[in-house]
Amino acid sequence: MDSIFMKIIRREIPAAIEYEDDDVIAIKDINPIAPIHILIIPKKFIPTVNDIAEADAPLIGKLFLVAKRLAADKGVAEGGYRLVMNVGKDGGQTVFHLHLHLIAGKKLGHETI
Amino acid sequence: MDSIFMKIIRREIPAAIEYEDDDVIAIKDINPIAPIHILIIPKKFIPTVNDIAEADAPLIGKLFLVAKRLAADKGVAEGGYRLVMNVGKDGGQTVFHLHLHLIAGKKLGHETI
Repeated sequence: MDSIFMKIIRREIPAAIEYEDDDVIAIKDINPIAPIHILIIPKKFIPTVNDIAEADAPLIGKLFLVAKRLAADKGVAEGGYRLVMNVGKDGGQTVFHLHLHLIAGKKLGHETI
Repeated sequence: MDSIFMKIIRREIPAAIEYEDDDVIAIKDINPIAPIHILIIPKKFIPTVNDIAEADAPLIGKLFLVAKRLAADKGVAEGGYRLVMNVGKDGGQTVFHLHLHLIAGKKLGHETI
């Protein structure tokens, strides 16, 4: 199974990498909807939330630990931010390798993702 | 530490409970922004994502396992849904006991949460 994110992890295509460890990579969204818009991606290929197994729970939780760290690094931890995971077509998912959007840098109401 | 969700868990105030186990409770949002709008809440009191510890990763991941299950129960797993965690004031967080919004039942673009 492959995805554009797997190609980024393998350095076959470029991306602006914000964070990386053995389990997770985080990159700038190429179409940001806010001043800060980062995608936090498990290196394990999981297409959608519908495909998460029980054993994946710690990995999914780790995406939030990385989000917490990035929010602090970017200076938005205190002010606030939004974390979004889109699932399937009606959810607005465009890349079918699950990823957590970290969106920040402006006040977010119900009108933005 | 207390929150409106702790009161719901202790049955001190009513809520429309959609799911419950030892670690997690899920309730209908009282101000839904879509036909399906459920809050998935850890029973452990954690105010925001900024307060998550490493040991909490499996619990945060479990919120997504419950989301997956509820989406299947509600018949929206296939069509899609959105999972959102708001953090702090700029993120639109209103209850400071962290919770995952499950939003579904309509096509979600960037214009909604």
